[in-house]
Amino acid sequence: MSSNSFGKLFTVTTFGESHGPAIGCVIDGCPPGLALDAAEFNHDLQRRATGKSRHTSARREADEVEILSGVYEGLTTGTPIALLIRNTDQRSKDYSNIGQQFRPGHADYSYWHKYGIRDPRGGGRSSARETTMRVAAGVVAKKWLAERFGITVRGYLSQLGGITPAGFDWSVVEENPFFWPHAAQVPELEAYMDALRKSGDSVGACVDVVADNVPPGWGEPIYGKLDGELAAALMSINAVKGVEIGDGFASAMQKGTEHRDLLTPQGFASNHAGGILGGISTGQPVVASMVLKPTSSLRLPGESLDTAGNVVEVVTTGRHDPCVGIRATPIAEAMMALVLMDQALRHRAQCGDVGTITPRIPGQLDG
Amino acid sequence: MSSNSFGKLFTVTTFGESHGPAIGCVIDGCPPGLALDAAEFNHDLQRRATGKSRHTSARREADEVEILSGVYEGLTTGTPIALLIRNTDQRSKDYSNIGQQFRPGHADYSYWHKYGIRDPRGGGRSSARETTMRVAAGVVAKKWLAERFGITVRGYLSQLGGITPAGFDWSVVEENPFFWPHAAQVPELEAYMDALRKSGDSVGACVDVVADNVPPGWGEPIYGKLDGELAAALMSINAVKGVEIGDGFASAMQKGTEHRDLLTPQGFASNHAGGILGGISTGQPVVASMVLKPTSSLRLPGESLDTAGNVVEVVTTGRHDPCVGIRATPIAEAMMALVLMDQALRHRAQCGDVGTITPRIPGQLDG
Amino acid sequence: MSSNSFGKLFTVTTFGESHGPAIGCVIDGCPPGLALDAAEFNHDLQRRATGKSRHTSARREADEVEILSGVYEGLTTGTPIALLIRNTDQRSKDYSNIGQQFRPGHADYSYWHKYGIRDPRGGGRSSARETTMRVAAGVVAKKWLAERFGITVRGYLSQLGGITPAGFDWSVVEENPFFWPHAAQVPELEAYMDALRKSGDSVGACVDVVADNVPPGWGEPIYGKLDGELAAALMSINAVKGVEIGDGFASAMQKGTEHRDLLTPQGFASNHAGGILGGISTGQPVVASMVLKPTSSLRLPGESLDTAGNVVEVVTTGRHDPCVGIRATPIAEAMMALVLMDQALRHRAQCGDVGTITPRIPGQLDG
Amino acid sequence: MSSNSFGKLFTVTTFGESHGPAIGCVIDGCPPGLALDAAEFNHDLQRRATGKSRHTSARREADEVEILSGVYEGLTTGTPIALLIRNTDQRSKDYSNIGQQFRPGHADYSYWHKYGIRDPRGGGRSSARETTMRVAAGVVAKKWLAERFGITVRGYLSQLGGITPAGFDWSVVEENPFFWPHAAQVPELEAYMDALRKSGDSVGACVDVVADNVPPGWGEPIYGKLDGELAAALMSINAVKGVEIGDGFASAMQKGTEHRDLLTPQGFASNHAGGILGGISTGQPVVASMVLKPTSSLRLPGESLDTAGNVVEVVTTGRHDPCVGIRATPIAEAMMALVLMDQALRHRAQCGDVGTITPRIPGQLDG
Repeated sequence: MSSNSFGKLFTVTTFGESHGPAIGCVIDGCPPGLALDAAEFNHDLQRRATGKSRHTSARREADEVEILSGVYEGLTTGTPIALLIRNTDQRSKDYSNIGQQFRPGHADYSYWHKYGIRDPRGGGRSSARETTMRVAAGVVAKKWLAERFGITVRGYLSQLGGITPAGFDWSVVEENPFFWPHAAQVPELEAYMDALRKSGDSVGACVDVVADNVPPGWGEPIYGKLDGELAAALMSINAVKGVEIGDGFASAMQKGTEHRDLLTPQGFASNHAGGILGGISTGQPVVASMVLKPTSSLRLPGESLDTAGNVVEVVTTGRHDPCVGIRATPIAEAMMALVLMDQALRHRAQCGDVGTITPRIPGQLDG
Repeated sequence: MSSNSFGKLFTVTTFGESHGPAIGCVIDGCPPGLALDAAEFNHDLQRRATGKSRHTSARREADEVEILSGVYEGLTTGTPIALLIRNTDQRSKDYSNIGQQFRPGHADYSYWHKYGIRDPRGGGRSSARETTMRVAAGVVAKKWLAERFGITVRGYLSQLGGITPAGFDWSVVEENPFFWPHAAQVPELEAYMDALRKSGDSVGACVDVVADNVPPGWGEPIYGKLDGELAAALMSINAVKGVEIGDGFASAMQKGTEHRDLLTPQGFASNHAGGILGGISTGQPVVASMVLKPTSSLRLPGESLDTAGNVVEVVTTGRHDPCVGIRATPIAEAMMALVLMDQALRHRAQCGDVGTITPRIPGQLDG
Repeated sequence: MSSNSFGKLFTVTTFGESHGPAIGCVIDGCPPGLALDAAEFNHDLQRRATGKSRHTSARREADEVEILSGVYEGLTTGTPIALLIRNTDQRSKDYSNIGQQFRPGHADYSYWHKYGIRDPRGGGRSSARETTMRVAAGVVAKKWLAERFGITVRGYLSQLGGITPAGFDWSVVEENPFFWPHAAQVPELEAYMDALRKSGDSVGACVDVVADNVPPGWGEPIYGKLDGELAAALMSINAVKGVEIGDGFASAMQKGTEHRDLLTPQGFASNHAGGILGGISTGQPVVASMVLKPTSSLRLPGESLDTAGNVVEVVTTGRHDPCVGIRATPIAEAMMALVLMDQALRHRAQCGDVGTITPRIPGQLDG
Repeated sequence: MSSNSFGKLFTVTTFGESHGPAIGCVIDGCPPGLALDAAEFNHDLQRRATGKSRHTSARREADEVEILSGVYEGLTTGTPIALLIRNTDQRSKDYSNIGQQFRPGHADYSYWHKYGIRDPRGGGRSSARETTMRVAAGVVAKKWLAERFGITVRGYLSQLGGITPAGFDWSVVEENPFFWPHAAQVPELEAYMDALRKSGDSVGACVDVVADNVPPGWGEPIYGKLDGELAAALMSINAVKGVEIGDGFASAMQKGTEHRDLLTPQGFASNHAGGILGGISTGQPVVASMVLKPTSSLRLPGESLDTAGNVVEVVTTGRHDPCVGIRATPIAEAMMALVLMDQALRHRAQCGDVGTITPRIPGQLDG
């Protein structure tokens, strides 16, 4: 069926393969009157792009966005916004030898079993290239959320292999190629990545993402909860194997008196819940984490099969990230922004305009 | 908007509040010809029920299912199957004192801010009582998956506070009130829970769930991936704060050579991926974990506010589970079964009948 | 898949068979704070009920609505509203002889070919009994539309066999058992129906439905247009074979200068468009018509087949309407109300609150 | 919200404005393994194109389709198929004078009231230019339906102003610029259109569309009925004001004995039902009709208002069709093909593969 769309009311449909002529998306449901210009996509697309440091894949894509529809004289019109990016730096011949082989740990195997056919060039549809369009769509969501509610969505790398931040400062996150929140550790990270790259191996990582100024009341019980949709959104990112909200798995060892966030006249006294109770935002920062597995495209050989069932030893050439987590921060931000944008529209559909965050008098109709 | 439905093709819509007259669900999209009898719901509903041991809430509900539609002469007809359970053991007066107060860590606060009105009796719609209908719907999904594919979906408690299993044996999981996979630890768990209950506090837990015999090819990239939908499904369960697939968060510290599952003529050599690659099942067991926070309904007082903004000290009376994870195993199973059932139907919609798990010849139309 | 739900944001899921234990619906997405009482359903359910005059089926159902959820202390809470009606006057034995036969012109044949199984008692799921729940859900939509916008939705019988209204007066529509807008013709209609009933035959009819005070701007191009959704809604009613908006099929013979509605400072000079341009409401009355075929359940024998392929002569006993159009007026109203309610919520999701019907300044964000 | 997608499982999302840089669509859910080439779109796109005879608008678009994704080595892969057509013959200056005026009978007025902003060039999103992508998507659906089931979907002009066919022959429909089924009347139609064009006025029309070889069993009660979805699909076409299935509005005057289609061992004895009973296909030809209003873009002046509320006299220059019905035949075919394709996939999701059209043994699981 049709599962290339994300969001119920602010709906983003993406298309395109890694080495096809283009990738793109259609954003449907955007409120009218939002100023939008093709140049606004550059900042986040460059944050996500490969080829910016020696720690990511060497592929260099211009990632130039063309707005095909939905904007008139610089403003969104309420009709679908189509965005297009031409692929310019494919090297499909790198993949000729693996067209009939299954890379261990790669979607090669499962796509083949699902569809009986697949585009092997650069991973085809399963490539992280698809996330470019998530970031592009996220730019629109981020802008509306910021203008309308002052919401900011920010992320950072919270673990690289066994390394975790020894300090925290939002202001340094954008100053290093890892989105790392503690500047003093950057040399250590660079040395780690250099050694990893030389070894031909890859490693996992974690990314945290935080949204500030989200009004209370967003999220829809029971099956459209804010945390449920964040989990789906983050888990849909390539290589992600786990998602946490607030204290996440640490909650297993906590007592109720330890986990619950007390309420004071000055607001909540803590944020173990990650800004969500009963699937609905509380007004505190919304906090989520995700883990990305080590990428499976390795220069180190691995035993596998080909489509005929023969044993083969697979070595991946081509250009790949030794740690896909490094570039995942803007993607995680985009997915959180898309979830929040969608929930904002859903909230005002049922409960009246999203500016109205004060509890209404019971019995009084919204609006 | 409308978020009380789960699943795109096998769609379950639940309704009902903890202390309302009844809870129920409508299952739409069930294949015709499946034998179904009201008595078949008893087994899983009893596994989920409170009041079965001293370690769960004392509320005792008969949980008797009435089939209102969709079944004729013992067989499903393809029309919607409505199931109804009357609530029989409400004690709404227990909640009279908290009607205007927000329990710290509870959905009281966020429901109020979303809707401006809420049913405080037993948590209303936010109560785990809603999960009864998930388990009921899961019974139908489990049965079809078993009859059609031999799929089994089983879960167990994988962590209780700081205690983890010291051994593993599926055959003992159903033999103790904790769904614990190592019999020798049961006395330790009982002692732990007795002390916890006396203290008036609560604790977190983890549940693992595993599906065997899932054919390769189920799951829909990009935004309907099998792991993405499992994450949403499990995260939507009351108190869940994190979800993992396969190795989950442990992947952060793994190398690619360590994480990737090699392919041999005898099948995969390991299952770090948890049976899912690129969002599509591989044919290996599908493995997911979830963490449940400690419940927020405590006898120990906590500082909070009432709806007028006054400081109050909240003490929850009523009947509550000191560890909601204990009864969560059948709920996790049900959610995984609902996800698999839905993906099975979606797979055959696009790719032809689900029996066809051999890769098709490219260019050959399905069916 | 799952097609027993109607509406995207105000979603009504119906269930139940003609001779099953009960019929019901779940309304999801209703705004909170709407006063709602079980007695409010009576008026429209009685307008739709059989057994009220000799011109409709003799089946007498109490049609007593029980509200199972979603209402607390007389107000909707924003959680799903489940409504239940027990069936009380089934006579299933009337259908024992047609269980294996296909009534000509009846859904017997197509249900059998779709599902391979069907509930033959009273037509099972294909019975017009299902429309009871549409009318019930429509009551909620009508009430919200009236309170929030002053919208009224009213219908009338606009053709009975070859008879059309010779005059028009809204005030007499509810004064006769036909919903006929011209009182002087009622004796003629009664005589016509008496003769028809005696003959054992049935006849077709048309119903018109009109919504006043709909604000301009409701409806969503391209595939969620107001007229497109009205067409789907009305065509989904049992026996309906055609739908028109405004001038409908008469438009084929009109010139552009004749059809277009000129705009004056006092408003539109005419309403050929039926209140919809480009799929969006204009602020004029929304006008739709539908035609219902003559019912296929006849006492007059007809040649047919049984499930084994044998030739049979089918005679329908049981209790049936000789003209299903007579009771269709409240159903058509309900469907138009459900469409408008859904579009109201969808409009404010994208474009800000529905009270804001003045064109906004370009570049200015909604809300 | 997001209403630019059509279909639940075979989902077509269109984008683009009449005078924007491009129009396009994304087809999601297409079965893998279907041969597809950009050249295959030409035939139907040329049938729909303007500028082919003097009876349609003079705008000449190359309508060259670029396949951006979803096809690898000539076969669909199961991933989304994006199609792009660059606009090449816009003359936006023709519209500079009506940017602030509402053409009577045009979507100008309602778009403005909905969004507070609109793209006036060529009607922007409300232009029939959007239907180009429906026709393109319909080509894919038609091909799969033909290869998989031998289904053909064909249409013709069944009324032009007051003229109706005096004879019927499928073989001449494609031989004249009107899709008219009776060759002898073509000179009359040409003379009529020449006079109409000279007058500056426009006229309405009707189109019939027929699908042969549709298996019984497609369509989903209650709210996804085949006729309900056809009604929505056809009503969503620009200028359509009415839809009929089978005998349509003529059914109002029919008796039940006249309307019902008797069943014989040789099949149905007639097809008053238009191939649909209870919302499900019967195996007979599926027959639908639609009426298109006379276009509102006229050279003859009409009284109207501008956005400031001033009285204006509107004259439409630019290039327009005096009868939009003439080019509507391929659009109607495309919409019927899209509905059938979607229903085919939905049917096999719930009931097993669509080849299985023999009623199954009750109690036997599908597949």
